[in-house]
Amino acid sequence: VTSSARPSSGIAFGIDIGGTKVLGVALDDGGQIVAEARVPTPTERPNGHEVGADVAEAVAAVVALLDDEVHAPNAPVGVGAPGMLDRNGVLRYAPNLPVAAGIDWRRLIGRVVPGRTVLIENDANFAALAEHRFGAGRGADHLVVVTLGTGIGGGIVIDGKILTGAYGFAGEIGHQVVDPSGPRCPCGRRGCWERYASGGGLGRLAREAALAGTLGTVVHLAGGDPEAVKGEHVTRAAVTGDAGALEVMEQLGWWVALGLTNLSAMVDPERIVLGGGLVQAGELLLAPTRRAYADLVEGGGSRPEIQIVAAQMGERAGAIGAAAAARDGILG
Amino acid sequence: VTSSARPSSGIAFGIDIGGTKVLGVALDDGGQIVAEARVPTPTERPNGHEVGADVAEAVAAVVALLDDEVHAPNAPVGVGAPGMLDRNGVLRYAPNLPVAAGIDWRRLIGRVVPGRTVLIENDANFAALAEHRFGAGRGADHLVVVTLGTGIGGGIVIDGKILTGAYGFAGEIGHQVVDPSGPRCPCGRRGCWERYASGGGLGRLAREAALAGTLGTVVHLAGGDPEAVKGEHVTRAAVTGDAGALEVMEQLGWWVALGLTNLSAMVDPERIVLGGGLVQAGELLLAPTRRAYADLVEGGGSRPEIQIVAAQMGERAGAIGAAAAARDGILG
Repeated sequence: VTSSARPSSGIAFGIDIGGTKVLGVALDDGGQIVAEARVPTPTERPNGHEVGADVAEAVAAVVALLDDEVHAPNAPVGVGAPGMLDRNGVLRYAPNLPVAAGIDWRRLIGRVVPGRTVLIENDANFAALAEHRFGAGRGADHLVVVTLGTGIGGGIVIDGKILTGAYGFAGEIGHQVVDPSGPRCPCGRRGCWERYASGGGLGRLAREAALAGTLGTVVHLAGGDPEAVKGEHVTRAAVTGDAGALEVMEQLGWWVALGLTNLSAMVDPERIVLGGGLVQAGELLLAPTRRAYADLVEGGGSRPEIQIVAAQMGERAGAIGAAAAARDGILG
Repeated sequence: VTSSARPSSGIAFGIDIGGTKVLGVALDDGGQIVAEARVPTPTERPNGHEVGADVAEAVAAVVALLDDEVHAPNAPVGVGAPGMLDRNGVLRYAPNLPVAAGIDWRRLIGRVVPGRTVLIENDANFAALAEHRFGAGRGADHLVVVTLGTGIGGGIVIDGKILTGAYGFAGEIGHQVVDPSGPRCPCGRRGCWERYASGGGLGRLAREAALAGTLGTVVHLAGGDPEAVKGEHVTRAAVTGDAGALEVMEQLGWWVALGLTNLSAMVDPERIVLGGGLVQAGELLLAPTRRAYADLVEGGGSRPEIQIVAAQMGERAGAIGAAAAARDGILG
């Protein structure tokens, strides 16, 4: 989704529209951040289109802050937004924020950021691009990047390019159904992968174990109430070596691996990068995931082992990828 | 997987190694079949490598028959084989014929078909290429081709090229897990898609309904024994409008659609082509599949409708795709 203007002198701006903040970076042509800016994301308006206009103003404010610092009036701008965006930059579907559906990011942002090339794409695709270009995915031209947070975001790299698909909706990997009789998902179906292999999924697994009486330490951390157990209580107990918490992390790793093997069955990556809040647990999650993956993948033992590694780009991944794509345009 | 020799004068040979026959075609540069040959597939040897050598001899025999007809000593040869083949033409994994694992098709076939360029690839990928170039997938550069037979084969087209993945194993779509507590699969796991959306899956759905007493006509066709009900009895009864049989076809369409929506979540095709024995049921399968897909796909109603259509290339799809790829090399 590109509009207007001339190529820049090497600087590109990347913006990531998040739930709490609009984060922007100015990236030089060596991939280094030379300026950074953020403003809170406006969310208090009742109407989706008003939210859109307000967020667009926040994006413009971030662009102005970056430009004040680096004076790059021709720098192209990449903007990452959550949800399913079509090739015209229109948000077609946002299961976690239905009121936002229909927002025309290209029109709204193009109007408040005039005179610059603007590229708009799904935020997870930009984060995947950042890992591929600068982070844990370097050198892997067939790559899957999975962000395990409240939900699951993802980006698929094929032959060094981000897969966007026929209409821009590729990489919606969190909404593969892995159990049609599983728990309900905000998307309207049952048993989507992100109901299991996410922060919310970890909480659910933990509460089940807590109610079964196998999570003494974890329940203690949650104030004594099994129903109050959350994912963070499990990871805190797991760090101390608590056996019950480690068993829940093993289960979580199994669910993470199940979705990864489905991705491997379809696109056969050579490496999988895992990011997002859950991966702050490090080897407590990665080791069980690798074990379960090796056990679950079709033909395991008869095919080359693939690498499952932690993301390296942190919270700026989306913004960095947006800037890189705005300059180099290596989306598929 | 390519070896030796010069480009041909326009004719290419394509060979498909099937369970009962080795089928070959000579294709001219307009995509027309100018010769065809077949020999039975040798399968009676107890040792996988002997089977491999015998099948290679059958491939050579088919090549010789084609060459007798069209005299194209420089024609390149594409060979499609079942199972997971790596980029060197070695069969790494064959869940339905474990004895064949390890067969080095490039070495075996290269030895008996000397002096020609030989390209070896998974048969379903070649079938997908044939539909894309000459069949129901024409004009769709983001395409998924699914073969619903005893199991499920598949090929994924991205930007007009067959996706082979990092190691050659992409497109193993039948082994996505859609229910981890489902029935066992020969691949060692539970609940693979091909346990539901295949000929075998239809038989299982039908026997469940028959044992529950809702399939009078179908059970009659099976000789009165609910345990003897097979998929073919259901499709025969469905053609006559039998309500119980139509209900089972509806269930089958739901399972087909479930796996298709997972494919759409990952790669976002603009068209899906369904082939294989089950699709001989035509609209009896396609209509329920389209209905369930529209209901199940994430963001359905907010995204462009995609086309779900029947394959057009028939039993020669694999051989035709193999010939086209041997000449033009448009695999990813």
